[in-house]
Amino acid sequence: MFNDPIARSSRLSVMNFLNEAANRYPTAISFASGRPAESFFSLERWLGAVPVFLDHMARKNGSSVSLAEKRLAQYGPTAGIIEALVAEQLRIDEHIACEPERVVVTAGCQEALSLLIPALCRAPGDVVLARNPTYIGATGVADFAGIEIMPVEPLAGEDWARTLARVAAELRHAGKTPRGLYLTPEFDNPTGTVLNEEQRRSIIAGCVEHRIVVLEDNPYGMFRFEGATTPAMAALDDAGCVVYLATYSKTLCPAVRVGAAVVPKRLFGSASEADRLLAELSERKSFVTVNTSQVTQAIVGGVLLEQQGSLRAMVERPRLHYRRNRDALLSALHLAFGARNGEVSWNRPAGGFFLSLSLPFEFAREQTAACARDHGVIVMPMTFFTLDETHRREVRLAFSNTEESEIEAGVERLARYVDAQTSLVH
Amino acid sequence: MFNDPIARSSRLSVMNFLNEAANRYPTAISFASGRPAESFFSLERWLGAVPVFLDHMARKNGSSVSLAEKRLAQYGPTAGIIEALVAEQLRIDEHIACEPERVVVTAGCQEALSLLIPALCRAPGDVVLARNPTYIGATGVADFAGIEIMPVEPLAGEDWARTLARVAAELRHAGKTPRGLYLTPEFDNPTGTVLNEEQRRSIIAGCVEHRIVVLEDNPYGMFRFEGATTPAMAALDDAGCVVYLATYSKTLCPAVRVGAAVVPKRLFGSASEADRLLAELSERKSFVTVNTSQVTQAIVGGVLLEQQGSLRAMVERPRLHYRRNRDALLSALHLAFGARNGEVSWNRPAGGFFLSLSLPFEFAREQTAACARDHGVIVMPMTFFTLDETHRREVRLAFSNTEESEIEAGVERLARYVDAQTSLVH
Repeated sequence: MFNDPIARSSRLSVMNFLNEAANRYPTAISFASGRPAESFFSLERWLGAVPVFLDHMARKNGSSVSLAEKRLAQYGPTAGIIEALVAEQLRIDEHIACEPERVVVTAGCQEALSLLIPALCRAPGDVVLARNPTYIGATGVADFAGIEIMPVEPLAGEDWARTLARVAAELRHAGKTPRGLYLTPEFDNPTGTVLNEEQRRSIIAGCVEHRIVVLEDNPYGMFRFEGATTPAMAALDDAGCVVYLATYSKTLCPAVRVGAAVVPKRLFGSASEADRLLAELSERKSFVTVNTSQVTQAIVGGVLLEQQGSLRAMVERPRLHYRRNRDALLSALHLAFGARNGEVSWNRPAGGFFLSLSLPFEFAREQTAACARDHGVIVMPMTFFTLDETHRREVRLAFSNTEESEIEAGVERLARYVDAQTSLVH
Repeated sequence: MFNDPIARSSRLSVMNFLNEAANRYPTAISFASGRPAESFFSLERWLGAVPVFLDHMARKNGSSVSLAEKRLAQYGPTAGIIEALVAEQLRIDEHIACEPERVVVTAGCQEALSLLIPALCRAPGDVVLARNPTYIGATGVADFAGIEIMPVEPLAGEDWARTLARVAAELRHAGKTPRGLYLTPEFDNPTGTVLNEEQRRSIIAGCVEHRIVVLEDNPYGMFRFEGATTPAMAALDDAGCVVYLATYSKTLCPAVRVGAAVVPKRLFGSASEADRLLAELSERKSFVTVNTSQVTQAIVGGVLLEQQGSLRAMVERPRLHYRRNRDALLSALHLAFGARNGEVSWNRPAGGFFLSLSLPFEFAREQTAACARDHGVIVMPMTFFTLDETHRREVRLAFSNTEESEIEAGVERLARYVDAQTSLVH
C-alpha cells in the first residue's frame, strides 16, 4: 500500500514540482532545501588534503608517495581505504566503539541505505519500518526495491518497546516480518526532533526482542546548538542490533559523496550473522559502485588526518551559523504567529537543519503553489515525507541554506499567506 | 536457474579465491587482474584540471569562480554537470550522435548497469540476455535483483537476428520476456573478441523486432591496436534500441568512478518511452548515489576541456603499452604452445585487455589453485564468466596489468603446468 506507484509518483512529482517552483519564482524565498550552507565549503583547501592522505598511505604501506598515488588512482577494496580514520572519528566525535573492520565506506550514506534495505528484506513479506514522517531517501529505496515501508509510532502511553511488539504482532498476523527500522534519532529530517535516551533504549530493547535491525542515520548529530548530547544508538547498543550510518556530506560537503555503514560485531548475539550482513553489504556494493571513489576518500581521509580525528573544530563555524538561522527563524515565527494562541505552532529544534510548523489548515501541493506564486515563499508540505495520511497540516521549514537576512521576510510572507487562508476559512 | 544462490556464491567464491591466491602466492605471476596499467595514471595532473572545469562552469553560469567552487561542492543535478563534455567526447572519439540531454553521468559504468537492468526488467518473467561468457558485473546485478540472466549465442549458420528471434520465442513459450541484451561488442571482457559490423546490425535488427534494449558497454574501445574501427552499435542504431555505456575508468583511471549512460531519443520509435527510461534512470540514481561526485566529475570535465574533447592523444601511450603486452603474450604463447598442433589455442585480440586460451583439459578452481601453488602463475578460469556449463576448458589471460618482462616467464610457467597435466592424462 505504501509503496504503490501512485504514492511514489506523487512523492516524486512533489520533488519535481518544488524544483519547478524554485525556477518559476526565482525571487521567492525558499525554506524548501535542506542543503548545507555553502559559505563554509573550502573545496580548494580540502583538495589540498589529498597529499596528506597519500603520505599517510605511503607510510602505512611502506611504499613511495608516487606508488601510493598510482594505487590511489586504481580500483581498490570494496569496503574502502579510510575505514580506520572513519572509525577513529566516530570514536572521538560520536563515542561509538567502532572497529575499522566493521566499516564499509559508501558513495554517500544513500548508497548504504540502498544496499542495506534490500539486504535485510529479502523474502516476500519482509517489511522495513520507519518513523513517520521520514526521510524520502529511505522511502525511495524501499519503493524501487518493491519492499513495503511501514510507519511505526507509539500510541499514547506506549513506550517504543511495546510499540514494536504491537507492530511486529500485527505484521506477523498479516504474514509479514519487520526486518529493519530506519530512523534519524538526532534532529530528524523532516521534523528536527530528537529521541531521548530512554526512547533510544526502548527501541533497542524492542528491536532486539523482535530481531529488527536499526538503521541509525545521523547526518545532523554534529550540529547540536544547546543541551546535553544524547548517546548515539550505536553507542547504547550492547546487544548488537544497530547499523550506524555516517556521512561527510554535511560536515565536509555533499560533493565528496562519502558515507559509511558500521555493522556491529554481533547481530542479535550472533557473530556469524553480523559477518554475513557485512559481507553481503560489500558484495552488493561491488555490483553498484565497485568501490567508493578513492579520490574523494583521500579528501575525507586527508581532512580527518589534518583535523587529528575530530571534525568538531571544523564544524564550529557552520554550527554557529545554523544556530543563528534557527534563532532567527524562531524569532520570526514568534513575531508572525505568536498572537495566534497556538493556532499555528512549531517545535524548537536543538540542532540540525529543520523545523516543523503546524498550520490551521491542510497544506498540500496546491497550497505550495499558491504560497510560492502569490506570496513569494516556498515551503515543503510534510505529506511529502509521510507514509500515511497524517501530518496534513504541517510543513517542513529548512533553515540551513537560507540567508539569515531573508528568514524574517520569508516568515512574514508565509504569515500573509496563512492570514489570507484563514480569513477565507473563518 | 542461472541466478540461483549456488551459482552466485560459486562465482563470488572464485573471486575471493583469486584474491586469496594472489595473497598466498605473492611471487606468482598473475594474468588474473584486468586492471588498467597504473604507470600512465597522472592523478596529480588530473586534479590540476579541476580549476579548468571551474573556470568553464563560472563562464557558463556567468558567476564568479569562487561561487562555481561553492556550487561544485554542493549537491547537484542527478544526471550530472558534465553531460555536454561527455557527449562531445562520444561524438569525437566514438562517432556517436549524442545529445547532452540524453546523458546520465553515473558513479562508474557499473552504477548505470545496476540501475538499467532492474529498470528494464520490472515484471516477473522479465529476463536480461547476455553473450556467454560475460562480464561478471552484469551477472551480479541480475543475481542481486533476482532477475534471470540468460546466455544468448548464435547456433552454427544462424545470424544474430534469427538467434534473437529463436530465443525470444523460446522465452515466450516459457512465459518469459527478454527486455535487455548486455554486451561488449569491442574487445569483450572476458574473451577479447569483437562483433563485426554485420553482426552488430543483425543484433540491432533482432532487438528492434523483439523490443529488446541493447546495453552496449564499451570500456575498451579506445584501445584498438590494429585494423579498421567498427562503428559503435549506438552509432548504427537508427531505430532506437541501444543504450550506450561509457566509462572513464580505463581512459583516465578507476578512482574517478565516472561513467555515463546515453539513452536514445526514441526507444523502438517512441520518444515518450525513451523519455520514461531516461527519467527512471535518474529517479533510481537519486536513491542510490544522489548524484555522481561533482569533484570527480570536475576532474573528468577538466581533462576533457584540456584535451579539447578527445581522449585519443591521452590514451596513445597506454594503448601502445597494451599492444606491446598483447604482442609479448602472443609470442610467448607461440613459443610455449606452438608445437602442440592446436591442442592449445588462443585468439589474437585486436585491442583491449584480454585474450582467451583454450586448454586440452577442464580448468576450474582446483586447477587454478594447483597452477598458482605448483607453478607460480595465476589465470582466470572462463567458467567464472559463463552463464551455463560451456567454456570449461578455457581461461582468460589479462595482459593489461602485467609487466611485459613477466609475460614470457608467466606463460612458460603455465606451459609447464599444462605439460604436467597432459602427461598425467596421456
